[in-house]
Amino acid sequence: MYSFVNDYSEGCHSSIMEALQKTNMLQTAGYGEDEYCAQAKEKIRRALKSDCEVEFLVSGTQTNFTVISHILKPYEGILGVDTCHPEQHEAGAIEATGHKVITVPNVNGKLTAEAVEKTLREHLESPIMIHTVRPGLVYISNATELGTVYTKKELTELHEICRKYNIPLYIDGARLGCAMASKECDYEFSELSDLCDVFYIGATKMGALFGEAVVFNDKKLAENFPYMKKQRGGLLAKGRLLGIQFSCLFEDNLYFKLADYAVKQAQRIQDALIENKIPLLVKSSTNQVFPILTYSQQQIIAKDFGFELWEPIDDEKSSVRFCTSWATDEKQVDRLIEALKLI
Amino acid sequence: MYSFVNDYSEGCHSSIMEALQKTNMLQTAGYGEDEYCAQAKEKIRRALKSDCEVEFLVSGTQTNFTVISHILKPYEGILGVDTCHPEQHEAGAIEATGHKVITVPNVNGKLTAEAVEKTLREHLESPIMIHTVRPGLVYISNATELGTVYTKKELTELHEICRKYNIPLYIDGARLGCAMASKECDYEFSELSDLCDVFYIGATKMGALFGEAVVFNDKKLAENFPYMKKQRGGLLAKGRLLGIQFSCLFEDNLYFKLADYAVKQAQRIQDALIENKIPLLVKSSTNQVFPILTYSQQQIIAKDFGFELWEPIDDEKSSVRFCTSWATDEKQVDRLIEALKLI
Amino acid sequence: MYSFVNDYSEGCHSSIMEALQKTNMLQTAGYGEDEYCAQAKEKIRRALKSDCEVEFLVSGTQTNFTVISHILKPYEGILGVDTCHPEQHEAGAIEATGHKVITVPNVNGKLTAEAVEKTLREHLESPIMIHTVRPGLVYISNATELGTVYTKKELTELHEICRKYNIPLYIDGARLGCAMASKECDYEFSELSDLCDVFYIGATKMGALFGEAVVFNDKKLAENFPYMKKQRGGLLAKGRLLGIQFSCLFEDNLYFKLADYAVKQAQRIQDALIENKIPLLVKSSTNQVFPILTYSQQQIIAKDFGFELWEPIDDEKSSVRFCTSWATDEKQVDRLIEALKLI
Amino acid sequence: MYSFVNDYSEGCHSSIMEALQKTNMLQTAGYGEDEYCAQAKEKIRRALKSDCEVEFLVSGTQTNFTVISHILKPYEGILGVDTCHPEQHEAGAIEATGHKVITVPNVNGKLTAEAVEKTLREHLESPIMIHTVRPGLVYISNATELGTVYTKKELTELHEICRKYNIPLYIDGARLGCAMASKECDYEFSELSDLCDVFYIGATKMGALFGEAVVFNDKKLAENFPYMKKQRGGLLAKGRLLGIQFSCLFEDNLYFKLADYAVKQAQRIQDALIENKIPLLVKSSTNQVFPILTYSQQQIIAKDFGFELWEPIDDEKSSVRFCTSWATDEKQVDRLIEALKLI
Repeated sequence: MYSFVNDYSEGCHSSIMEALQKTNMLQTAGYGEDEYCAQAKEKIRRALKSDCEVEFLVSGTQTNFTVISHILKPYEGILGVDTCHPEQHEAGAIEATGHKVITVPNVNGKLTAEAVEKTLREHLESPIMIHTVRPGLVYISNATELGTVYTKKELTELHEICRKYNIPLYIDGARLGCAMASKECDYEFSELSDLCDVFYIGATKMGALFGEAVVFNDKKLAENFPYMKKQRGGLLAKGRLLGIQFSCLFEDNLYFKLADYAVKQAQRIQDALIENKIPLLVKSSTNQVFPILTYSQQQIIAKDFGFELWEPIDDEKSSVRFCTSWATDEKQVDRLIEALKLI
Repeated sequence: MYSFVNDYSEGCHSSIMEALQKTNMLQTAGYGEDEYCAQAKEKIRRALKSDCEVEFLVSGTQTNFTVISHILKPYEGILGVDTCHPEQHEAGAIEATGHKVITVPNVNGKLTAEAVEKTLREHLESPIMIHTVRPGLVYISNATELGTVYTKKELTELHEICRKYNIPLYIDGARLGCAMASKECDYEFSELSDLCDVFYIGATKMGALFGEAVVFNDKKLAENFPYMKKQRGGLLAKGRLLGIQFSCLFEDNLYFKLADYAVKQAQRIQDALIENKIPLLVKSSTNQVFPILTYSQQQIIAKDFGFELWEPIDDEKSSVRFCTSWATDEKQVDRLIEALKLI
Repeated sequence: MYSFVNDYSEGCHSSIMEALQKTNMLQTAGYGEDEYCAQAKEKIRRALKSDCEVEFLVSGTQTNFTVISHILKPYEGILGVDTCHPEQHEAGAIEATGHKVITVPNVNGKLTAEAVEKTLREHLESPIMIHTVRPGLVYISNATELGTVYTKKELTELHEICRKYNIPLYIDGARLGCAMASKECDYEFSELSDLCDVFYIGATKMGALFGEAVVFNDKKLAENFPYMKKQRGGLLAKGRLLGIQFSCLFEDNLYFKLADYAVKQAQRIQDALIENKIPLLVKSSTNQVFPILTYSQQQIIAKDFGFELWEPIDDEKSSVRFCTSWATDEKQVDRLIEALKLI
Repeated sequence: MYSFVNDYSEGCHSSIMEALQKTNMLQTAGYGEDEYCAQAKEKIRRALKSDCEVEFLVSGTQTNFTVISHILKPYEGILGVDTCHPEQHEAGAIEATGHKVITVPNVNGKLTAEAVEKTLREHLESPIMIHTVRPGLVYISNATELGTVYTKKELTELHEICRKYNIPLYIDGARLGCAMASKECDYEFSELSDLCDVFYIGATKMGALFGEAVVFNDKKLAENFPYMKKQRGGLLAKGRLLGIQFSCLFEDNLYFKLADYAVKQAQRIQDALIENKIPLLVKSSTNQVFPILTYSQQQIIAKDFGFELWEPIDDEKSSVRFCTSWATDEKQVDRLIEALKLI
């Protein structure tokens, strides 16, 4: 049995494990005031060609609610798509900090500039405006929950609308590496410095044991953020663990190499699905693929491979998810492709 | 330069590092649904000789606010001493979940049953009771912030008052191992099952990279706690990291052995201080010691050793803290003791 | 110009004004501990033929967030229709207390038992249940935002589902009087004691200056509610103002008489609309009616009457709302009916 | 039996009752968008000789938590004295909005500039600053909980410290009229425009049925406040009730005349106490006086007069509070003075 259930089934890339081991008995300052964190921040700034502010946190949900509750006023909410992580899979974490998640329908997992403008305009023009929640931040994830990736044009349009209404654009980058590795991605990593106001570089799903790096392109948004890290539980006593891991990932482009590998494996699976005329819920360009399989097809595959049930389609079939990562065994992908041919 | 600044300057005990390495490429279920977490919970239950509920979280502040906000009603607060961690060092984390921290003066860092009863009685007898915050949980830490340890009699009295008023007693065990290793500790680890309603076994400061294990003696208090872990950011995708670490620590009593070592080293320092007639802020029986040093004495020691400034006494002197851990180098303790003789 | 914009354009019914005046210089205890509050609670209990708990609050939004945040656990949300007041018109008040508003599509403004069961079942059956918000209370308003009224069968089915899943059913009764006066209402006021777990009797829109009376059929849900009233800002120093007003409204069935009057006037308007073949957004049976008028028709009516724009239909027309109340001038209704004939 | 228990035992001043009656059946816009609110705001601006922003709310606790949660960042708390209302008597309302109440000892009920500066400096100089709560607003009440009044020098010094640290100074004016009527008050009402950044003019205890007017001297602090009024439950549908009442109070200096009367009556009582050598807890200059009476003295007075138990002194005596208001009957004060002579 080999698992394609998710991209966090294994530990971390060997170079990270080695670095953790090598540094294990060194004494450093606590709470991220160590040299490894400083180094990692510097490497990220260099990769982004930007003098941005970088802050490390532990997990994705924690990153979302800490950043969002730091930026919003108490009467503001975030605006995202109906399928977005804070709406669907964070157990009400944003609301627990006092803020509404306002949603609009997704288009292939994405938020459109039109939908954002319509929502913002409707709010401002409403005669009962103060009885409704003011959108105070636009939330997108890249790659999206459906494995799709924003184009440069799409990000630029979103950012322009946000600027017009003076609202920051935030990118949840839990799988940002995979977005960058997608063939649909027509921009460099460093261009993210201009394409949004704040984003995070996810590492939990991209080769680390855990860890997310928040990048504040707009440094004003970072003001006093360290208080929030502490208050919201994201400040590790041994903060260096985050510095060491990100330092590895941003050495010699490891982060992007691991992403390339993960995306390549998933795309091999998707190509095989297409070749075998198996329908897709959505065409993904990253490390998650979403075939629609009958329940009997699923039973066959499930003998040898783990995957995730996604959403029911009808009584006979549902979409499922196959997920790859930096840790995926290429030979198991070969085996899966063979198995898919036979169903 | 050798640091006695805190007990989280290094990584983790070698057996944990080895276990992390050995399991690194194994595939497991996410979010703590793996066998390592199951094993670790079972080992903790065995050590406690109890059928308690065990839940893992990442850091101490996160554990405090997640447990406390899970237990309290919106109109309740916690009751602790003025020096307690949530009051002093958690950046308002408890208040951020909507709850007041009600404080009474500490006695050697400890909360007394008398003070608890007085506060609870005053609340209940107040003619304007509903205008004041109802204490809904009694918070203590063991060892305390001042390195002192509750006796069995003290815990029993506190627990009795809590039961009388139907309020749970919660022990913050960030340094619980050190409490158990103290010569003042006149109870077994397993007796904690009866001495309080919920507590946590701290690992961040006791040999792990990170991690705290919440033990619900009163299993009703644990109901639906997993939602809270997710909502408050404490549910790691690679949850097994917590299982692996606690499984090591509760194998062959490692947790307690590491604590014994840490306490032994600190007590050697404290003995040397007493021998040299250096006054103490408080007599500690655990891994933190608090001499009062003149600023010129501090300058001498600071040439070779790191320590923490604690509180100013007057223009000439202050208390400082020397902290040891499982990782402390015994030879460096020897050197420190020599240095203390010369000031 | 006469306003049909809403049902809170005037002050209060004359009998309330007289009572306020008559009692003005009497000395009473503060914070609702006075005899008028006691009397009013007793009258409400008598009208409901029930030994329920009654608590007074000031306004509707305040009542909703105070009751809801009192009942829910931190990881729970409320379940309501997409058009419900907390979702649309309370400026994020529920979320500000930490809770998500989970919505399903409305059917004529109403929530169906099927939709509730589907949502509850999906939550419980979800493999990632703890990553989603647990519905902890079912919220409906009666009359609804669209002026429609739940039948006894509908309420019974909703309540059964709620009981099955052990979740309270809460009725927002901002316009409860009008619901009771509706010809669609096939139950007595006192039957509300069995048809839900908690509801509020709205007075702001039903003859009082302000005030809402929360009725806890399930008295366990009322436990310690007075702390919440204080904490959430709903405890008036001169709490008797609420007692005096509700005492008037529940004397000699005044509350229901005023509602009958309001509904009768609105239904006269709706009958005239139907007679004149003017389409309706929804057929209302209470004090709000929702014709669809072209913008040129609206211009004509707007010369003499105020009304509220509801929702745009297309470039030429929109729905609008005419609202009546206990204070509506019957002769102005006559005039409006005449005017509607001419458009 | 005549009550001196508090200053909210009666309804409202006759001129307010008349205005409510006279305007009762007029139709106005809802939610404070009416002409009476506009008028009242204008009158307050004129009295303050300032172009400030004015917003109405319903009650004192609501005003405190709405203003404070509007101004603070999530990682900030308020700084006040240990006896301040949010710390002692608001059921954790500030904490329920996520913020800590940081306290320092009071001096005659007052906060000193020294204590403020010390706290702010300690926070900024702390090596673990981000682990502690950042003071984000200085809270005082005037008159204080003990009936004392800030001098111009005291307010000026507090405001200077606040400006130095870039933190707003907020005055809770539940009894602001009485402060202005005090002989210790050496500034005009209009000077409050410069002596703080935001304050509220309490009316609940000063002649109205209910109502508090928040004055934002610093208009930037008022930005988007209406959303908060709605979200926190302070936006009355019949908002005009607040406009009508404040319009009366600021017509022909009624507010100040009522305060003068209340203070005069209380001072007569205090003078009598002093004359009879009855010790005082504190010397008040406003409408509350705090004699220390033996329990047997209290029994005698309690036969004819209501008063409030304040704090126990020892087994034989306690302080008590006599409170007067605009509604106090002068003849009853005469009777009380006579009674005090005989104990």
